[in-house]
Amino acid sequence: MAVAGDKVVGIGDYRGKREVDLSGAYLAPGFVEGHIHIESSMLAPAEFARAVIPHGTTTVIADPHELANVLGLEGINYMIEQSLGLPMTIYFMIPSCVPSSPLETSGAALSAREIHYFVNEENVLGLGEVMNWPSVLDGEQATLDKLLATEGKRIDGHCPGLRGKDLNAYILAGMKSDHESVSVEEAREKLRLGMHVMVREGSTARNLETLAPLVRELSHVRMSLITDDKHPVELADEGHIDCLLRRAVACGIDPITAIQMVTLNPAKYFGTSHIGGIAPRYYADFAVLEDLKGFRVTQVYHRGRLVAGNGRMLAEIPAAPATPLRASMNVNWAAWKGLGIPAEAKRVHAIVYQPGQLTTGRTLLEIDVRDGMAVANPQRDIAKLAVVERHRATGNVGLGFIAGFGLKRGAIASSVAHDAHNIICLGVDDADMELAIRTISDLEGGVLIAIDGEVRASLPLPIGGLMSDRPLDEVRAMMSNLLDAARETGCTNPDPFTALSFLALPVIPSLKLTDLGLADVEGFRHLPLFEQ
Amino acid sequence: MAVAGDKVVGIGDYRGKREVDLSGAYLAPGFVEGHIHIESSMLAPAEFARAVIPHGTTTVIADPHELANVLGLEGINYMIEQSLGLPMTIYFMIPSCVPSSPLETSGAALSAREIHYFVNEENVLGLGEVMNWPSVLDGEQATLDKLLATEGKRIDGHCPGLRGKDLNAYILAGMKSDHESVSVEEAREKLRLGMHVMVREGSTARNLETLAPLVRELSHVRMSLITDDKHPVELADEGHIDCLLRRAVACGIDPITAIQMVTLNPAKYFGTSHIGGIAPRYYADFAVLEDLKGFRVTQVYHRGRLVAGNGRMLAEIPAAPATPLRASMNVNWAAWKGLGIPAEAKRVHAIVYQPGQLTTGRTLLEIDVRDGMAVANPQRDIAKLAVVERHRATGNVGLGFIAGFGLKRGAIASSVAHDAHNIICLGVDDADMELAIRTISDLEGGVLIAIDGEVRASLPLPIGGLMSDRPLDEVRAMMSNLLDAARETGCTNPDPFTALSFLALPVIPSLKLTDLGLADVEGFRHLPLFEQ
Repeated sequence: MAVAGDKVVGIGDYRGKREVDLSGAYLAPGFVEGHIHIESSMLAPAEFARAVIPHGTTTVIADPHELANVLGLEGINYMIEQSLGLPMTIYFMIPSCVPSSPLETSGAALSAREIHYFVNEENVLGLGEVMNWPSVLDGEQATLDKLLATEGKRIDGHCPGLRGKDLNAYILAGMKSDHESVSVEEAREKLRLGMHVMVREGSTARNLETLAPLVRELSHVRMSLITDDKHPVELADEGHIDCLLRRAVACGIDPITAIQMVTLNPAKYFGTSHIGGIAPRYYADFAVLEDLKGFRVTQVYHRGRLVAGNGRMLAEIPAAPATPLRASMNVNWAAWKGLGIPAEAKRVHAIVYQPGQLTTGRTLLEIDVRDGMAVANPQRDIAKLAVVERHRATGNVGLGFIAGFGLKRGAIASSVAHDAHNIICLGVDDADMELAIRTISDLEGGVLIAIDGEVRASLPLPIGGLMSDRPLDEVRAMMSNLLDAARETGCTNPDPFTALSFLALPVIPSLKLTDLGLADVEGFRHLPLFEQ
Repeated sequence: MAVAGDKVVGIGDYRGKREVDLSGAYLAPGFVEGHIHIESSMLAPAEFARAVIPHGTTTVIADPHELANVLGLEGINYMIEQSLGLPMTIYFMIPSCVPSSPLETSGAALSAREIHYFVNEENVLGLGEVMNWPSVLDGEQATLDKLLATEGKRIDGHCPGLRGKDLNAYILAGMKSDHESVSVEEAREKLRLGMHVMVREGSTARNLETLAPLVRELSHVRMSLITDDKHPVELADEGHIDCLLRRAVACGIDPITAIQMVTLNPAKYFGTSHIGGIAPRYYADFAVLEDLKGFRVTQVYHRGRLVAGNGRMLAEIPAAPATPLRASMNVNWAAWKGLGIPAEAKRVHAIVYQPGQLTTGRTLLEIDVRDGMAVANPQRDIAKLAVVERHRATGNVGLGFIAGFGLKRGAIASSVAHDAHNIICLGVDDADMELAIRTISDLEGGVLIAIDGEVRASLPLPIGGLMSDRPLDEVRAMMSNLLDAARETGCTNPDPFTALSFLALPVIPSLKLTDLGLADVEGFRHLPLFEQ
């Protein structure tokens, strides 16, 4: 194969100024991640690139939904600007659902007008996952305006469990993909109705094993394999797309089909016509593979340049542009009234934690009362939960209780709390909770654990309260410390931070807590803490 | 399936204001013709539509290469304007090679600048088949400018027999499709290098049977089935895309694959995202099929409207816009010197007709001389050939001889003569030849046969000298009369008019005759008639 400049120019018997012998290896197109929120890696774009390029990823389609919820236009611009000049290609889908719910206070709101600022940018491919499918089905003008603002570009869907006429109507409105199928039947229906089905296998949701039979049956060009979210520990320990390929083949998927699902198929779906294949006029983006089972990536080329080899970056990551990004912690400490909850009644509406699920249950429980205050009780596995608004200094603090999380000591807290990313803190001791919340505010964001009046471990996330400014190995190490410290709290949850980060998300059933109080997701309303 | 307005809105258990029961039938997307020169049907766009819609065709991608060679910008505009408002969709690829050769005099020349006028029109999809591959490989600026002028749009290729590095270079320049493969190996190489391979099965070239094994093996989404050219007799007797489907299945191709090759595959290739499938948001274009073998089309819907049923048009074809189109016959009769050829030497370079081929052979032969003039001799099967320039009144008349065509009496003539479409006439009697040529000029174009001083049969083609203004059945009847008359000339060629129309094309080897004289195709130069 002959390369000139950044492109493949021919396949055949060529001689070159520089020749590379790849005998015995497999040459695949550079991997394309079809849908990811880079923020979930807790890495800034440059460090994310440094982390994934050695694993063969040369193109990423990113949806900066998280930072957009915190910093709006500035957040999207930051992600775009920080992605320029990297030795990989990052395309963007503009977040469609900011905020994702009126039941919480986010840092920004994006209407069709704001979205339209970005749609004609060169590295913007379209509109990010339209999660608010009820507003689509209801024909809400604000949502339809967003679809119209991006017409002619790709519009990604997100419609878990949507079937039948509702699914038809959703597709009719313009959504061309979905990555939320959790059964073969659901995925098959979406494919039959013309959708591009992205099989998601990430850190928070894994559907590959379930959907593998459909892939094996169809080997369909309208199927991709994506991560959606990939947390730093897994990124460090498992890799990125190479990990998806290993798992796909372990699930019995033909390796060539698996490679197409992370190269040509997503590239075609997104209309990026010079990516995802090895042929004249395609960009010279390659992953050199040792075999088609372990998928060890021995070399990575981007735009004709060797950028990584044997798991290490070779190309320099250019210094990130000095995008001025405002601090994102804006808690109204003047209005702070502490975390005490005067006992207004005997029973409270409480969240019931469901291990391994993003959904929660709900219950009415007798709450312990001490000095007139409703309190947590680790013996009964009842913890307190607080969500502190941190964008607009509203002074909002949502307070409530959660059963079954397993915390026995101290407090854990995070500024990563989908989707508004206020500060969330779960604890059994008010002092530890306040320490945790104040420290996160001081750090300009982060994840931490406080026990007995001391911060035991922390991971600062100064970029929007979502991302570190450090490389993956340092983030991985800090996260290890945090997981160690988590065990000191008595919590047996293998990943309490991810669990915590979804307890404030009022679009996943059934009971959540936001800065505005308990949110009854199905009822689409707030619920008073105490039984009335 | 539910339709609202011009679109499919859902598939499922719907009720409608109007309901159609298609029990026992097959519902296919309306057929998409991926590459055709409508002019080859000898029908104006409206009559072409009337002829093909009942056969299930709802979308055509047309390359008005022929009329562009005659009338340039005006010709392209005519085809576009005449296609508006029809009960089918006609997209255009702008002809890239006008003129196709400097060895003849065409009516127009289109550079990148002229092509650019059209590229952003709504129903223009890109640049038509780039036949001049040598100029691509040579990096000729005028050709590269045309490719640049249409960048970002589809560019169709046309590269018969191109392989290896030349093929790589051609693809690198931007051509994304080819429809000239005549072997499985050639088509496979083009597919592997990323091309969309159109399997051609038309009136002048048929590759389906040869390429069917590759289709059966791959069932590839990057393969389509197209006609390129479809003459009126075959259009009337065999149909259009339905005929391709019958033949494909007869060649052992899976019927669903065959249907995809004339629906979804070409639609995806051309980036026409709402065509070629049956799913929400797709246009309600359908062909209702009786079965998947005979592919009898019982109903045709375009944009949700029943437009044809049981082989007959139901929708009205709106009156064609009164596009003012100038007369295209501009022969310089003042300079006319007749068809006599003074015998300058004993031997002439002569074309050797090869039955069933577009290529010709060449020979040096002793020519009969009468009264000092070189003359035809039907006993030796040597006819005279004349090409009369008819665009710019240059007075050019190319004269020569052809062996083996089989004409024993009279003359046959046509204003369809690829690619410049000057008047071509083949005969054994100068008086009949002159009558034929003058009559074609008087008719403003056409095909005719003159015997013994009488026009025996004619088909007027007043639109650019290429197309009739009559419906298919009348054109078919006139063509039948012409074929009957052809037999009176003693000619046993089943389609002498098509054969005649390629004798002036100086891009197909080896010896042709243009208005500028004998053209040595391989030598890319003119040849004197007499041996020097």
